[in-house]
Amino acid sequence: MVVKSQVKYIQSLSQKKVRDEEGVFVAEGPKIINELLGEPGVSPVAVYALPAWISANQALAGRLPEGALSEVTTFELERISFLTTPNEVLAIFRKPVFNNSVDADKSLVLMLDNIQDPGNLGTIIRCADWFGLRKIVCNPGSADCFSPKVVQSTMASIMRVELIYTDLLEYAQKYSVPVYAAALEGKPFTGTKPRNGILVIGNESRGISEEMMQLATNKIMIPRVGKAESLNAAVATGILLSQLTL
Amino acid sequence: MVVKSQVKYIQSLSQKKVRDEEGVFVAEGPKIINELLGEPGVSPVAVYALPAWISANQALAGRLPEGALSEVTTFELERISFLTTPNEVLAIFRKPVFNNSVDADKSLVLMLDNIQDPGNLGTIIRCADWFGLRKIVCNPGSADCFSPKVVQSTMASIMRVELIYTDLLEYAQKYSVPVYAAALEGKPFTGTKPRNGILVIGNESRGISEEMMQLATNKIMIPRVGKAESLNAAVATGILLSQLTL
Repeated sequence: MVVKSQVKYIQSLSQKKVRDEEGVFVAEGPKIINELLGEPGVSPVAVYALPAWISANQALAGRLPEGALSEVTTFELERISFLTTPNEVLAIFRKPVFNNSVDADKSLVLMLDNIQDPGNLGTIIRCADWFGLRKIVCNPGSADCFSPKVVQSTMASIMRVELIYTDLLEYAQKYSVPVYAAALEGKPFTGTKPRNGILVIGNESRGISEEMMQLATNKIMIPRVGKAESLNAAVATGILLSQLTL
Repeated sequence: MVVKSQVKYIQSLSQKKVRDEEGVFVAEGPKIINELLGEPGVSPVAVYALPAWISANQALAGRLPEGALSEVTTFELERISFLTTPNEVLAIFRKPVFNNSVDADKSLVLMLDNIQDPGNLGTIIRCADWFGLRKIVCNPGSADCFSPKVVQSTMASIMRVELIYTDLLEYAQKYSVPVYAAALEGKPFTGTKPRNGILVIGNESRGISEEMMQLATNKIMIPRVGKAESLNAAVATGILLSQLTL
């Protein structure tokens, strides 16, 4: 069961401030929770599950820390869920800690200049994980990667890719590396894959800020064959990452 | 102003059945509506706009068919809008008619095997338009491309890419062309861009149906460098289309 104070606590985790203070985030549904629980080093704080999830996942449930699992009713799950249609299980996890942080001098790092849509951000994190990136640098105005909507679309990639929120110019100026900026006026990427550097993706409608664009060493674009006005930011990121990493 | 019967009519357009019978669809917000109104051959049936949109878009508003424009209040727009936050203008358009239909014998055609998420479908349509595809073939179980959510994420690409809903096997068997199927067990695409053929993308969780997979002449995959369990369907489509068309 869930007591009133728990309902209140979980609801408060919709706020970034509370998530930051508590160092936790919420995930929902068997697909992502089962994947997260299977990751090494993942630390679930609390799992609220319907009997159906518990009986279907006895091995996972058995490995949870003492007292972390609460069996809840459909009605109780509805009270705590952030989804329109609650999905069997909700869990609170500790935010991941990255001990072996990798920066732009050692590897390709993705930089997001004001990505606003939570779905786009989640999809971009999954994409970065697919292509082996270890770090994403976001400006403080970008969507928060631990908001429930972002977490839902990252799947367990949120545990494998480190996101930091910091001043983009300051970060980029620390490294003498190629800075690839996605820009309509750029050239298609050719050449061999870089061993280090930064790929900058801009805001969904305004693109990359002028100051950041000035740091670009290579402006790259995806040739347009047809007539669409633009590509979705996550799709553009996926295509450029495939070109830069494969 | 909007009278009660108009409110009822617009709300009824949330249903595919009604959209099909009426041959129309709804779009909202200045970005997509202004882009749609600028397309050749686009036929707006009705435009409901706040005074702000009308005064900012006098040229567009002036070119509307007689009687098509209604000035509405914020309250009225809220009553007819499908968005959580209504956005200045809502318009009803006639569905596009494609006189020069292009099929898999002449060009690369995208085939969607049960794409369910409206946001994914919209993003895929935009992507297909970017890479110059003219047709998307969906199985009847795929999301409807004229649902308000899909339209919002296609931008005006919905007017440039023809979507047909039909039996995928029957369609594919009509043409002796390469059939590229996105499949985890495939090989990375290499070689020159095909002058015709079909690219099949499967359902978000179950992939491509077995029967359709049997028709594949080339199973292709996007190499995974990192650990993400999968790529988003729209991102995968974008990457494969970039490889097959550029």
